Amino acid sequence: MAQLRAGIDLGGTKIQAIVADDQHKVLAAARQPTPTGGGADGVVAALTAAVRDAADHAGVSTRELAGVGLGSPGDVDDEKGVISNASNLSGFDKPVEVAAKLRADLGVERVRLGNDVSVATQAEFELGAARDYRSLLGVFWGTGVGGGLILDGREWHGRGAAGEIGHMVVELNGARCPCGRLGCMEAYAGRRAMEAEARRLHDKGERTELFKIMRDRGRDRLTAGVWHRAWRHKDKLALRLLDRAYEAMAAAVASAVNLLDVEAVVLGGGMGIRFGEVARARLEKQMLPHTFNDDRPPAVVLASLGDLGGALGAALLLDGKAGS
Amino acid sequence: MAQLRAGIDLGGTKIQAIVADDQHKVLAAARQPTPTGGGADGVVAALTAAVRDAADHAGVSTRELAGVGLGSPGDVDDEKGVISNASNLSGFDKPVEVAAKLRADLGVERVRLGNDVSVATQAEFELGAARDYRSLLGVFWGTGVGGGLILDGREWHGRGAAGEIGHMVVELNGARCPCGRLGCMEAYAGRRAMEAEARRLHDKGERTELFKIMRDRGRDRLTAGVWHRAWRHKDKLALRLLDRAYEAMAAAVASAVNLLDVEAVVLGGGMGIRFGEVARARLEKQMLPHTFNDDRPPAVVLASLGDLGGALGAALLLDGKAGS
Repeated sequence: MAQLRAGIDLGGTKIQAIVADDQHKVLAAARQPTPTGGGADGVVAALTAAVRDAADHAGVSTRELAGVGLGSPGDVDDEKGVISNASNLSGFDKPVEVAAKLRADLGVERVRLGNDVSVATQAEFELGAARDYRSLLGVFWGTGVGGGLILDGREWHGRGAAGEIGHMVVELNGARCPCGRLGCMEAYAGRRAMEAEARRLHDKGERTELFKIMRDRGRDRLTAGVWHRAWRHKDKLALRLLDRAYEAMAAAVASAVNLLDVEAVVLGGGMGIRFGEVARARLEKQMLPHTFNDDRPPAVVLASLGDLGGALGAALLLDGKAGS
Repeated sequence: MAQLRAGIDLGGTKIQAIVADDQHKVLAAARQPTPTGGGADGVVAALTAAVRDAADHAGVSTRELAGVGLGSPGDVDDEKGVISNASNLSGFDKPVEVAAKLRADLGVERVRLGNDVSVATQAEFELGAARDYRSLLGVFWGTGVGGGLILDGREWHGRGAAGEIGHMVVELNGARCPCGRLGCMEAYAGRRAMEAEARRLHDKGERTELFKIMRDRGRDRLTAGVWHRAWRHKDKLALRLLDRAYEAMAAAVASAVNLLDVEAVVLGGGMGIRFGEVARARLEKQMLPHTFNDDRPPAVVLASLGDLGGALGAALLLDGKAGS
């Protein structure tokens, strides 16, 4: 039997687990909402539940898994098996010994940890849309906007914190970013910042269907699905905020391309995947006026592993290639 | 006798040549103004004149040189020995076979060509202010603002055109850059753009000493020396445009740091060297509000090879390390 492994993508709102074989074929997938409040134990319990579900669907016990890889936000220390400074996760503002807990609870020997954006970028590079390129920038457009770099076939992490494309400055003294700084790209393009701006304008009396769609879909925030439906309905406020998001994202991505001259840009993330080709084409088009070598722009491609890219990348950690 | 080599820094306004030994010790230096108009032959004649002068000072004939390295703007093809698309150089908008001409005119066997910013970055990395770092961003603040990247000890060129830090976007729909695009950092921080803005405001009636200082110094443009003197005189317009330049440069450099998380930023270039520690300290300070990991900012250091850095880096090309 092929060696099976699990991969987990730990996000602020959902946990995606998969079981894959050693050829990276996904045999089963399972999803859990990320517990909000209740501390780190609740989050770890949801991680193990997701892996158990996926293993069940694949017809194996978690003890039979060759290992578990986890992609996480925050500061990831794979050597120590610890995640910290993940402010979006309940209880993860302090260091959490995730690897030891997963090993004990799931009965697996090997647990590897990686940065969520890094493993997703690595997955697209090894298995997805960027297989044909040696240098690329992964742009993950979701709650925030994360960036992953592959340069000459290898991940670039700098001193451990490279890839903060969402915090490249696109407007001097511009909008306040959720990070507290002014004029970051994410202040315009991150879903969280877009929602805050939509609420502010709605509270001031601007008309929008965004919050009605949100309630109709039983959501408590403006998910990528809510934005997409509002866009299809040509909701004026939504269109305006999306325009602003594309403008800021295109400027920052073009700036990164001017600096690094990579072969390809891979667009993923919750918003990127939901808007799909529309988002890819807009990013490509709106980057061009800012691209210094506009006769030879990089390829702009859509992440092809979709929702499972993060979990697949986490499983790749067990090959010892991906990491943070 | 130690093997001597020449290095040439070909700029839009001046040509700097040196003769150095194989330990990179500068034995002699010579300078020529870059001919404007008159085509490529005039520029090449000035290159050879500068090398001859430097060789004379060093007490050798150019035939005795082990080789000549040249750092140049534009598209540099070292393999073919050709420079093209250097729009600031008379006759270099078309391809010029510089290496063959230098070999013939100087009687040297080896001629190596490199990008001016790349070789200056490499010189600071190998011999100058960045010797203690493995990853760095070189910021050359002059007529424009050029960038050079060393990542994990090796130059990063991307597909050949990396480092365009001057064309990172710092203001959506911002000022018109000399390159024609909107909101590039260089539109605020490049000496050429600063001069255009100063002229525009002066023509509109704003008071400034900048152009009087220029004339008193026998210049036909606002050199780094002119800006420095106006700054010392607390000329209000000059101070305002310098503020704008630092603001834009700091935002772009911080954006690059957020993306790459390099260990160090090295500030050089005509303006950077002239303003020296004042510029370094301001850049360091003004980057911080935009730096995502502000508890661990990169070192910001001044290029230590000064005016000769470009020529020294060009000579390094003969070691087969630097290049474009």
